[in-house]
Amino acid sequence: MDLDKLFRKNLKTFSAYEPGEQPQGDGWIKLNTNENAYPPIPEVLNDIKNAVDSKIRKYPDPTAFEVRKLIVSVLLREQDTLTDRNTVFVANGCDEVLDTVFKVFVDPGDEVVFFYPSYGMYDVLASLYGAKVNEIKLNEDFSLPEPAFTAKGKVMFINSPNNPNGKSFGNAAILKICSNFPGIVVVDETYADFSTQSSLSLLKKAKNLIVARTFSKSFSLASLRFGYALANKDIINEMNKVKLPYNSNYLAQVAAISCIKNRERLQQQNKKIIEQRQLITEELNKYPGISVLPSDANFILIKFDDKAITLKFLWDLREKKKILVRHFSKAGLYNYLRVSIGLEEENRKFLDAFREIASQYL
Amino acid sequence: MDLDKLFRKNLKTFSAYEPGEQPQGDGWIKLNTNENAYPPIPEVLNDIKNAVDSKIRKYPDPTAFEVRKLIVSVLLREQDTLTDRNTVFVANGCDEVLDTVFKVFVDPGDEVVFFYPSYGMYDVLASLYGAKVNEIKLNEDFSLPEPAFTAKGKVMFINSPNNPNGKSFGNAAILKICSNFPGIVVVDETYADFSTQSSLSLLKKAKNLIVARTFSKSFSLASLRFGYALANKDIINEMNKVKLPYNSNYLAQVAAISCIKNRERLQQQNKKIIEQRQLITEELNKYPGISVLPSDANFILIKFDDKAITLKFLWDLREKKKILVRHFSKAGLYNYLRVSIGLEEENRKFLDAFREIASQYL
Repeated sequence: MDLDKLFRKNLKTFSAYEPGEQPQGDGWIKLNTNENAYPPIPEVLNDIKNAVDSKIRKYPDPTAFEVRKLIVSVLLREQDTLTDRNTVFVANGCDEVLDTVFKVFVDPGDEVVFFYPSYGMYDVLASLYGAKVNEIKLNEDFSLPEPAFTAKGKVMFINSPNNPNGKSFGNAAILKICSNFPGIVVVDETYADFSTQSSLSLLKKAKNLIVARTFSKSFSLASLRFGYALANKDIINEMNKVKLPYNSNYLAQVAAISCIKNRERLQQQNKKIIEQRQLITEELNKYPGISVLPSDANFILIKFDDKAITLKFLWDLREKKKILVRHFSKAGLYNYLRVSIGLEEENRKFLDAFREIASQYL
Repeated sequence: MDLDKLFRKNLKTFSAYEPGEQPQGDGWIKLNTNENAYPPIPEVLNDIKNAVDSKIRKYPDPTAFEVRKLIVSVLLREQDTLTDRNTVFVANGCDEVLDTVFKVFVDPGDEVVFFYPSYGMYDVLASLYGAKVNEIKLNEDFSLPEPAFTAKGKVMFINSPNNPNGKSFGNAAILKICSNFPGIVVVDETYADFSTQSSLSLLKKAKNLIVARTFSKSFSLASLRFGYALANKDIINEMNKVKLPYNSNYLAQVAAISCIKNRERLQQQNKKIIEQRQLITEELNKYPGISVLPSDANFILIKFDDKAITLKFLWDLREKKKILVRHFSKAGLYNYLRVSIGLEEENRKFLDAFREIASQYL
């Protein structure tokens, strides 16, 4: 039997998403995958631990009833957005929100629109689902180019703040896109809790908008997988129909509930990350030959004038300092390093290491 | 904007999977969703609790390296099966194994074969992915009919032991199907740890075989979502390519590792379930007007001669005794109740309740 003939044809040219390195062993400073620098606070860890009991044997609530209720009634209470729990979809991480959007809206050959550079999963999923891809190149400064406002298609993905540069696109532009685009607009707000902007307030105006969010970053729960989406309840209803029945695990739901209850303390921690982002940006902008892009996220993108020097920094940070940052070997990104904001001490070590390496190359 | 026009057309006729009831409140005896009656042992609960620390903020290992290694080198060591960790795929529950099989093998219009009655997700996913469905009716006694051995198609799903009747199909039949079927044969062994049979030993002979398994049932981890599959490494390689990068959460991986280390004690617990299955079967078979089908799983299927009486039992068990069992309002299943095997005390209460209700109706 020739297995090759059984695999779907479009897998022949399919490239999987490449996650950032998760190093084994201790002593690494991991500034490469945009995880929250702070661990969950003790109250959240305790709530998770206390839930580890005989209930582990049972299936989780397939409707995630309690947490959906708390998302609209508590977490987003002060936002001017939807308030019905039937406008909330819960998933095994934000990636599963994206996957579910494809299951609801995208037949093979349907056109899917996204931008470059941005989060790699839009392209990976579009290719997996056999969609026709319209990848629109962002302007040199990572702003939205004119074709964003005239594109046609079934689904458009906008990452705001955008990965890897970290800047939000602004609600005026996003609302204009929602009005012009004939399909569904997904605003992936994975990093929005580090920003002052959000498209949540557009949901009442734009029926074709889905806002995707996650507890991985701002609430330090990446390991447990908890993502969600807000949208018109007709959209959410279809998303709930097609999801795997027990997609969201029990401890993720428990942890999410605990984070919502402790949201103010977690937001305080995130403020420190924002302050550190500002500090690092200012420090790095003092060097010649590099500039830091403005960021609303828990990471920054550093532009180097010289590609060779970019790679020397990447190498020396890793090999001499055990500091991991992210480099993308992709068009237009060779001269950039993306650096997640760490704890104060990690950031200090990063700046010290940067200074040392800079003294050699800059 | 008319959202209805944006949803994929095949969702118009799509019916979601209906999970069994998860009642709120205490005092219920839940024999309706085939969860393991026993909670995880204290060692496993402790290992999970001890993992709830600062690592929660980080992404889980996207390759599930450690647990894949332990599955082949420890858990399945005494089975005559594949031994390379690159023959193991890890997923967010066994349902995600099934979903991934569709992503690797099924284009719209491809034929998918499964049996009726069986686990409902094969049909749900086939319909979601736009597959052409060949649903083959099992014989009256739930054995495989002749068309099982001559069917053509891209993927065939065999649930063994089969849900809802609980009986395994036997390796001679499954090997014959693997030889005859031109596509991939998925043997879903969700309940195989309660049986003396498994198709794992066929993997060395049948290159087109995928064996799907789970820690939800036999290892009492339903809440955490940990499923896996064994197959030829070319198949597993494609499955790993298309999966969401962080599909398997960290605590599920931790819990699975702990279950593997404590497997002997967990298998002892499962022996008690098997003994109780035998005892309940014998007790119930004493009643007139009903018979219990032979089962290899952690549940039994009770056949009632009279449909009206079936529903009276369902109702009285629920309303008068707070005991949940499963009834399927589906062709050929109206006269059956499926009952998960509980703890000894729960089973005794079930048998007492059954006796009381029987004295009225049988």
